[in-house]
Amino acid sequence: MDYPKLSAHVDSRKDEFLKELGTILRIQSISADPSKKGEMVRCAETIAGMMSSAGIENVRLFQTEGNPLVYGDHIHAGDKPTVLVYGHYDVQPVDPLSEWVTPPFEPTVKGADLYARGSTDDKGQLFIHLKAFESFRTLFKSLPVNLKYIFEGEEEIGSVHLEPFIRSHAELLNADVVVISDTSMYGRDMPTICYGLRGMAYIELTVENAGIDLHSGSFGGAVENPVHVLADIISKLHDKYARVTVPHFYDDVLDVSKQERGEIARLPYTDEEFLRQSGAVAPYGEYGYTTNERLWIRPTLDVNGIYGGFTGEGAKTIIPAKATAKISMRLVPNQRSSKIIELFETHVQQIAPPTVKVAVKKMHSGEPALTPIDHPAVRAASDALELVFGKKPYFILEGGSIPEVLTFQQALDAPVVLLGFGLPDENSHAPNEHLYPRHFFDGIKTVAVLYEKLGRR
Amino acid sequence: MDYPKLSAHVDSRKDEFLKELGTILRIQSISADPSKKGEMVRCAETIAGMMSSAGIENVRLFQTEGNPLVYGDHIHAGDKPTVLVYGHYDVQPVDPLSEWVTPPFEPTVKGADLYARGSTDDKGQLFIHLKAFESFRTLFKSLPVNLKYIFEGEEEIGSVHLEPFIRSHAELLNADVVVISDTSMYGRDMPTICYGLRGMAYIELTVENAGIDLHSGSFGGAVENPVHVLADIISKLHDKYARVTVPHFYDDVLDVSKQERGEIARLPYTDEEFLRQSGAVAPYGEYGYTTNERLWIRPTLDVNGIYGGFTGEGAKTIIPAKATAKISMRLVPNQRSSKIIELFETHVQQIAPPTVKVAVKKMHSGEPALTPIDHPAVRAASDALELVFGKKPYFILEGGSIPEVLTFQQALDAPVVLLGFGLPDENSHAPNEHLYPRHFFDGIKTVAVLYEKLGRR
Repeated sequence: MDYPKLSAHVDSRKDEFLKELGTILRIQSISADPSKKGEMVRCAETIAGMMSSAGIENVRLFQTEGNPLVYGDHIHAGDKPTVLVYGHYDVQPVDPLSEWVTPPFEPTVKGADLYARGSTDDKGQLFIHLKAFESFRTLFKSLPVNLKYIFEGEEEIGSVHLEPFIRSHAELLNADVVVISDTSMYGRDMPTICYGLRGMAYIELTVENAGIDLHSGSFGGAVENPVHVLADIISKLHDKYARVTVPHFYDDVLDVSKQERGEIARLPYTDEEFLRQSGAVAPYGEYGYTTNERLWIRPTLDVNGIYGGFTGEGAKTIIPAKATAKISMRLVPNQRSSKIIELFETHVQQIAPPTVKVAVKKMHSGEPALTPIDHPAVRAASDALELVFGKKPYFILEGGSIPEVLTFQQALDAPVVLLGFGLPDENSHAPNEHLYPRHFFDGIKTVAVLYEKLGRR
Repeated sequence: MDYPKLSAHVDSRKDEFLKELGTILRIQSISADPSKKGEMVRCAETIAGMMSSAGIENVRLFQTEGNPLVYGDHIHAGDKPTVLVYGHYDVQPVDPLSEWVTPPFEPTVKGADLYARGSTDDKGQLFIHLKAFESFRTLFKSLPVNLKYIFEGEEEIGSVHLEPFIRSHAELLNADVVVISDTSMYGRDMPTICYGLRGMAYIELTVENAGIDLHSGSFGGAVENPVHVLADIISKLHDKYARVTVPHFYDDVLDVSKQERGEIARLPYTDEEFLRQSGAVAPYGEYGYTTNERLWIRPTLDVNGIYGGFTGEGAKTIIPAKATAKISMRLVPNQRSSKIIELFETHVQQIAPPTVKVAVKKMHSGEPALTPIDHPAVRAASDALELVFGKKPYFILEGGSIPEVLTFQQALDAPVVLLGFGLPDENSHAPNEHLYPRHFFDGIKTVAVLYEKLGRR
């Protein structure tokens, strides 16, 4: 592949590409706003038109009970790998509008950046894939991989219709690798691949004594207080090294190689910056691990909410009838949410005193996901990034979950590569969302090179 | 004093007394209901009229910004003690009305009992004092003590105007002993004196880390969770013997005599009955004390409410920015609320980790109250009860506080005797409130005898 030719081509089209991106950035496709239904359809149709113009075939809209999904493909590479590209054309709401320095749906270049709602999340990144396809096809005629595209309009409202669609169209979407550009690089000029996500087991723990709140004058001191018991249980769930004390909790945690920990260690990190981002008083977590390791490769247990008794203004003197904690455990490979919940419940029932009733209710769960760092698809992405950015990419993980990643991985049994070109400070869900055009153009080049790298397999 | 004559007189007037009580029970003096303003005034005026008819002098209504206070006196006993009687003419709301078996404001005799809202709390008990005065005066002409009466119409809504009134009319209300009949006997045919109340120190404890809720995917495992810290602190506030661990918490607790513990021990008590009343799974409390001792003579610390993070339906994955517990400590003589709050705050700040900010906010407080069991006024009441009921009275305490008791004690520097004639199962705040007439008549006799006993001092 003639990379200088590709690079020169993209560079020569900069204004044109940004202008074309502006067309879809102008569409107010806020999926959370029911009054924008028309805009959603207009955005889907506009993107479908762009796909056809670029040479993508079989372009069609799939209606759902919500917003349409846009599909297209280009299957002319025979037994070469098939790449499925996912993106979303819906955007976050814009309020508070007063905090925007430029109108959210009028793309505006300010300094080095392009300001508009959706510029980075995810219209800009979706558009990278269209321009990569178009550029490759214009320059080199035939594509070295088979390509499929699926773009949804409900990512910002929970992707409710995506999973059933994927499951019922597994053959249509069948692919060897899924590429998603909807995440951020670790920082400017730091090409990044995200190769894993933590899973989740979410439960509700309730401690109950009397069926009703009791007057603390009439009963205080002579009955067990459910809040005290809940506090006791919570305080026993971690040891003084911030390790989770549920027996066998760590049994299935996959060993993380020295190489991977080395990759994490070479990322720029300072406590000061972490504290600035989090607002926390101090870094705190499992003994023996760095902050990024705590966030990415170690499972956690956190109370996400707690309530019991009187929670209004002022004072009320009661022994609460019951107290509840919402608790989530972030999981890492190869922990399984069902087993973890079982271990949790067994442990809690074992340490619960006989003076109360304790119940564990399963809320929701998701498994951890990992595309190994040495997977051929990850390596192809890494090579593409290195060629375009001129430096070895950084390997990161994500502490949260991205539901569609799991769905693709499970329903299609295909590895997912998270090749994000956003930046952490581009305000993807806040006022003044913006895009750094250099990463946008480098993204186009990277994706085109990635076709070539994947085609060599 | 010719007790047989008194007793025969009261017995001969039973129907008349109940009928007269009916007059005020028919008035819908629900202080919580703004539409009943007229009824409140009518009730105050009716009682004032009854007081004058009974021979009480200087009867007048004091207007407040709420409902009027009714005052009257009879000061003709020279240097004999002055007794101040407190009662209240307002009643609890009646809802749910559908659960009443007889109309709440139509006094109805059913079985042995008289059913009506206010029959026991507190119109019936207030009326005992009017009929005791009237009977004594009718039979024996001169009263052996000076008497003052103050009846309020806002007890069920927090007595907001009573305290300032007492403080600004301390001379008018000045007395040697305050008698309040607004509590219950321990059981039927169990004459009872309540000689102490626990106090209260109420605080709000807040643990805060980041200024905002953090995404538990992005930050979980690497920052301190305020709920965990709050749970840790709460779990450290009691030891395994259910003793409060705040240093010096028990320093000022008055020794309770063997005699007093003996009085408590002779009260009928079973765990079964206690569990039925409380609904609790098991009795639980400070090691080395019985249930009644835990409730009455031992201080406590209870979380009355706790909240932090996500408390709605479903699941939200956040590290809460902060978590708050509302904590009250029930105090016994001679603990002082201000000192206890100081000890609490010092302790909590000492055990708080450096990874969070911890704040203690003082909510409200009240001191414990005690009229010693061997106080002459308590002995006079005890003698009166023994004469009328034919058995030695039981001595109990109250685990909760009765704000007006403290106010009288502090503002007038007078001992308070709680001489209640209600019963614990008379539904004072529930549908089908009722009064056991035998106790009502015995109450009239007891109060008349009490004048005589107090007059001998």
